[in-house]
Amino acid sequence: MSIEKIVYQGDPGSYSYEAMLEFFGDNITFENKDFFPDVFEDVSKGNAKYGIIPFENSTTGGVYEVFDLLNTYENCYIVGEICVEINHNLMSIKDAKIQDITTVYSHPQALDQCKQYIRKMNFHEMPYRNTATSAKAVSEMNNKSCAAIANKMAANFYNLEILDSKINNYINNITKFIIITNNLTFDKNSNKISLILITSHSPGALYEALGCLAKNNINMMKLESRPIKNIPWQYSFYLDLEGNLEDENIKKAFNELSITCKKFKVLGNYIAY
Amino acid sequence: MSIEKIVYQGDPGSYSYEAMLEFFGDNITFENKDFFPDVFEDVSKGNAKYGIIPFENSTTGGVYEVFDLLNTYENCYIVGEICVEINHNLMSIKDAKIQDITTVYSHPQALDQCKQYIRKMNFHEMPYRNTATSAKAVSEMNNKSCAAIANKMAANFYNLEILDSKINNYINNITKFIIITNNLTFDKNSNKISLILITSHSPGALYEALGCLAKNNINMMKLESRPIKNIPWQYSFYLDLEGNLEDENIKKAFNELSITCKKFKVLGNYIAY
Repeated sequence: MSIEKIVYQGDPGSYSYEAMLEFFGDNITFENKDFFPDVFEDVSKGNAKYGIIPFENSTTGGVYEVFDLLNTYENCYIVGEICVEINHNLMSIKDAKIQDITTVYSHPQALDQCKQYIRKMNFHEMPYRNTATSAKAVSEMNNKSCAAIANKMAANFYNLEILDSKINNYINNITKFIIITNNLTFDKNSNKISLILITSHSPGALYEALGCLAKNNINMMKLESRPIKNIPWQYSFYLDLEGNLEDENIKKAFNELSITCKKFKVLGNYIAY
Repeated sequence: MSIEKIVYQGDPGSYSYEAMLEFFGDNITFENKDFFPDVFEDVSKGNAKYGIIPFENSTTGGVYEVFDLLNTYENCYIVGEICVEINHNLMSIKDAKIQDITTVYSHPQALDQCKQYIRKMNFHEMPYRNTATSAKAVSEMNNKSCAAIANKMAANFYNLEILDSKINNYINNITKFIIITNNLTFDKNSNKISLILITSHSPGALYEALGCLAKNNINMMKLESRPIKNIPWQYSFYLDLEGNLEDENIKKAFNELSITCKKFKVLGNYIAY
């Protein structure tokens, strides 16, 4: 077991795999996992030093299972982020032509991101675990009527031909990946802070919490809410802020937040991509 | 064409179908649609009087495609909501036993909601368009190793046997459905308001918008953010508030919001379930 091992979710050739190579370079030891919780489990127990997972797409939004896992795995922290441009391609086995295709396989978010194209082409859609897995499956099915939606790297990995490219609804389609590890580390260059808050369930509680940030001149870049699973219609909040944990205004605001909020966890302080 | 027609997304026997019968009774004219945008399209054009669609689950969160469609279809409004308790069942063809099952088909959110059970049983998961469609597919496959995760009604509709029940991770699993129509209607009993806001992209803009509500003593029950599709990392906000559009404090706050925000749309004023 290499202590510096990196785990990612998906198959070789996936967007996560691409993001991993871009962030860490290619002189690395890595292993793939089928599910997001497996990545967290390995990182949490120290079986791997880092995990890399998709966190948000610029058109379809957050990968909400990952938000929830950051809340559940108390010792997992964000140490970095990287953005990968998503260019979806339609791919099938050699000799298949675009007019042969009736069914497309891909991750539900990728299908969403190509919804306009899929409807125009009148394809039947089949959700699949992830984009690279769907390319692998299409390769194994060896059926000219089936295609996958995935990145170029997956076409190379699974020996498929690209029939059409840039088929996403929006050209400006970017996925942000986060890198997690099992302790909170930051340095003076870290300029982005991620937080989870649970406010009390009283009127104005969220407004009061955001007030701790506003009156200390902290810029909030993002706010998401997630249901608290065992209490219907109550929420936890995920926030991204500008700043460093050593900044005086951040210390002051966080001190206030920890008094005001029922739960308050710093998820990480890292360099914004 | 009946002007009072109701459209829902999914197949007969789905949770949406169940919600429709519960909200409207069974003396109705209805039609099912494959995709959420089809429901909005029919309602927007007046081909159907009402549409009913899932909006949020208490454990997995919002159905984000529907949030986005409420933003896109400017003339679609919420006129009501209803909650349905989700009790997921594992079902397969007659004679199949639980130990025969290797693969489960269902909607990705239903698979998420049963993740603990699926992992414990070591099932391979296959995402499918919706729960009832997966039951129909399992019925047609006629293969003892395949099961669907769906409601009891779907088992009856597609002649499947229930092998295990209440397999969701959390017992308290509720899905909220909304009813949409193509104009904004409310009466004096309407006590819940839904809104979409787009604030300016400046520090503190969201805090300022929430301030318009807080200082007019308006209780916010929910806040969600959604990416603006063609502008990476900018967001629109979806809010639920307590109140009636005729209330003085609501009028005052909304007047302020319409000045402060780049976009401000009342999505509906209806009776909270």
